[in-house]
Order: sequence, then structure tokens, then C-alpha cells
Amino acid sequence: MENKFSFAKSLIKEVAHFIKEKMNDSLDIEVKSNYDDLVTNVDQEAQDFLIKRIKDHFPTDNILAEENNVRHPIDKGAVWVLDPIDGTVNFIVQGNNFAIMIAYYEDGCGQFGLIYDVMNDLLLSGGGSFDVYLNHKKLGNYTKKELNRCLIACNAGMFANNEYGIANLVSQTLGIRVYGGAGISMMKVFSQEILAYFSYIQPWDYAAAFIIGKKLGYTILTMDGKEPDFTSRQKVMLVPKEELATLKQILDIKEM
Amino acid sequence: MENKFSFAKSLIKEVAHFIKEKMNDSLDIEVKSNYDDLVTNVDQEAQDFLIKRIKDHFPTDNILAEENNVRHPIDKGAVWVLDPIDGTVNFIVQGNNFAIMIAYYEDGCGQFGLIYDVMNDLLLSGGGSFDVYLNHKKLGNYTKKELNRCLIACNAGMFANNEYGIANLVSQTLGIRVYGGAGISMMKVFSQEILAYFSYIQPWDYAAAFIIGKKLGYTILTMDGKEPDFTSRQKVMLVPKEELATLKQILDIKEM
Repeated sequence: MENKFSFAKSLIKEVAHFIKEKMNDSLDIEVKSNYDDLVTNVDQEAQDFLIKRIKDHFPTDNILAEENNVRHPIDKGAVWVLDPIDGTVNFIVQGNNFAIMIAYYEDGCGQFGLIYDVMNDLLLSGGGSFDVYLNHKKLGNYTKKELNRCLIACNAGMFANNEYGIANLVSQTLGIRVYGGAGISMMKVFSQEILAYFSYIQPWDYAAAFIIGKKLGYTILTMDGKEPDFTSRQKVMLVPKEELATLKQILDIKEM
Repeated sequence: MENKFSFAKSLIKEVAHFIKEKMNDSLDIEVKSNYDDLVTNVDQEAQDFLIKRIKDHFPTDNILAEENNVRHPIDKGAVWVLDPIDGTVNFIVQGNNFAIMIAYYEDGCGQFGLIYDVMNDLLLSGGGSFDVYLNHKKLGNYTKKELNRCLIACNAGMFANNEYGIANLVSQTLGIRVYGGAGISMMKVFSQEILAYFSYIQPWDYAAAFIIGKKLGYTILTMDGKEPDFTSRQKVMLVPKEELATLKQILDIKEM
């Protein structure tokens, strides 16, 4: 597993370099499900780059990835979960504040995860049998905080509509931040700049954080308190386990 | 004026160093107007540091600053406008994503402004007779974009309550970002990562951006389309002048 983890850490830097080179060219932008669900040629080329390098090294391993409907089930054998560019809108509009995410599972059991904030050169990696590092700094477990000294990161729509009472929760904290990407938001949860993150996301958006979070005292649950399914887009929360009971008292969640 | 501008650029780095040193100690946090309006001993000490250095060099100059009610009128003589830590909540909770802001006015006429994102070492400076630089990169004027390829930065409450139709505007763009500080948000407007910024802010929050924006084709107006008063907290927008007419069609603004 050491070997695969080292390979993944090299690979994510390699594909970041590939993406940065491509940012000098003009982007082909396509609309996916609706006007603000965008994909570029670079998302697709970066995913192809990742898959080719993984298959060259580990020919029998499988892939679950964002683009082109590459959807091997998470619980069958060796599975790499890939998000070549998380925060595509930020990538397009800002040329900044996007991430690459890679996770590796065996028979549904998370072995390690990586989240790389490309332009700010911040690599979060670890989980499973590996300690979690943000670049060269080892990250510790969640440390208890008072709600009124915390910030929440959230999908703007879920906040504005007070879905599941999220706005009620926010009102008991120092406020909300909206960064426009699951990867960079979840990285701020693990560095304890943000208490919890709420969004409506896909398996490749949470697969790495699911593994890393388990190691650091966090859990990812759907908004009805279940494990996410790793197949569909779901409304989920990334929260410290230790705060679940407190959050349950404030949020409007059926079962938790 | 070259002399004062150089002085200001050195000074803002000096006070940043002072603030970073202080971040190793524990903070004294006080609540100001309400539970999420916080100030720390470092805000106050950094402001004292700035005022002392300015008074040492320019004894007859005046100060308009955030803390301790230092409120020289903007239109009377030589006035330094100071925000020692903009984004105090981010400073306290995240130890990141806060800015120092300095602006210099003569008889109400903006001479130069500086916004320094301390932890990310990004210095935006210029305006008046000076070109605007982000570190060593000269920034160009606003370049025309389509709304549906833009992002909006906004105070979360103004968005959630659709004040002045801001949520209607956001729905015609690629979405909203909430960063938790006027300084870092307005810096992203000038680097063209964000189209426009809406918030409920004080003179020291917009004094630097007012000068820098004028140089780059932007304007800061109150939400009823007037010049901000430089005395009270007001709901304002930082927008490209070229987009005012378009925004006027979407936003609910009486006079503009």
C-alpha cells in the first residue's frame, strides 16, 4: 500500500502540472446538466491522463471517475476514485481555488485519499494506515470548539433556503463561507479553519475526504444521517463526530 | 507623493510582520456591537503601531481608523484611512484570509490605496497617479464579460434575503462566493476572479478599494446609487462602471 500511496502523491503533482500547462491555452467549455454545471476539455484530458497512468502501473485496478461515465462500483476490488478538477467553475472563472482529488478503495474499504489545491500548492494526503499531512505538516484530530467561535462552509442554495435548518445552525456560529468547491472546503475543515461543510455532491467529491476524515475524527453522512451511497449525487455533511449530538439538536434531520 | 506611497508599502509589510508575531500568542477577544462583531487586542495594537509610525513621519497628517473612534473627516487635509485587520472573524477562527488596508486622501481626493492579504502575501497597491500592482503584476482595467461566465461575492445575509434583488443577479451568474472579508473579496474583484462585491461596510473597509477601483474602471456606490459617505456603515457595491447599466436592469435600485 506504501507503494500505491507514493505513486498517488507523485501522480497528483504530475497531473497538476499538466493542468497548469493547459491553462495557458483557451478552454473549450461545455454545459452538462444545466447552465452552471460546466466541464472543460481540461477536465476530460486530465482524467484521461490519470486513468492512463494508473492503468500503466496497475492494469487490473478499476476506476470510478467524474467524466465520461466511468463508474466501477466502490465495493468491488481495487478502485481508484478520481475527480480531475473539483470546482470547475472556479477553474474557469478564477483560474484558482480548484482541486484534484484521488481516493483509493479496496472492496469498499478506504485506503488513502488526496486533495490537492493546485494553485496554492496545498496537498492534503493520508487516511487508512497513513497519517494525514497538509504538505509537511501532520494534522491532528478535531479539537473541541464552541459553536459561537466557528465558521460553516456550505452550498449557497442550501443555506439560503435554510434546508435541514442549516441557516439556523449558521446563526449560532460566526457565519458562513462559500468557496465554490468541495475539495478546498473540506481541506479547510480538516485544517480546522471551518467546523463543518454541507453540500449536494457526487461520490468523487467526497471519496477522498471520507477516508481522510475517518482518520481525523470526522464523518460524512447524508442529511438524513446515513452513510453516503457512492453512486448518486446526495446532500451530505462533513462534521466532527464529537459534534454530531450538538448538531442534531439544531439541524432538522430525521435520523442520525 | 512617491515618498508617501513608498512609506505606505513598507509600513504595511512591517505591520503584517507585527501581526504575524502576535498570532503566536493567545488572543484577547472582545465583542463589539453584537456577538459576531469581534475585536482582538491585535487589531488595536496593530492600529496603534500604524498610527505611531505615520505620526512619526508625518506629524501633521490625520487619521480615520477602525478602532477607538479615531475619526478625522475624509475631506479635511491629509488623511490616512486605516483598517488594521479586515476580516477579524477569519483572523480569529482561521488565522488566514484577513487583510490590512491603508488609504491616503488629500482634501477628500484619493491618492493611493493598499490592500494586503497577509498570510497569502498578496499586496494590491496603487490608484491616483500610481499604476495598480498585485505584487509584481500590473493589473489592467476591467475587461467586459458575460454575466453567465461570472461570479459574485456578497455578504451572506444580503444574498439570503435577496436584498436589492442581489439573489436575482446571482441567479444569472455562475454563483456566489462568501469569503468573510471586504479586503480579500475586493482584491478578487480587481484581479477579475469576481465580477462585483456587495456588502454592508464601513469607510475603512472601502477607502482603499475606492481609490484603486477608480483607476481600474470600477466604482463603489451605495445600494441607492450614491457615493458612499465615508462616515457611516452603508450597504455598498463595488462594480465595473461598464456593467452599471446591465446591473441596474436586474437589481432593485431606486436611483443609479
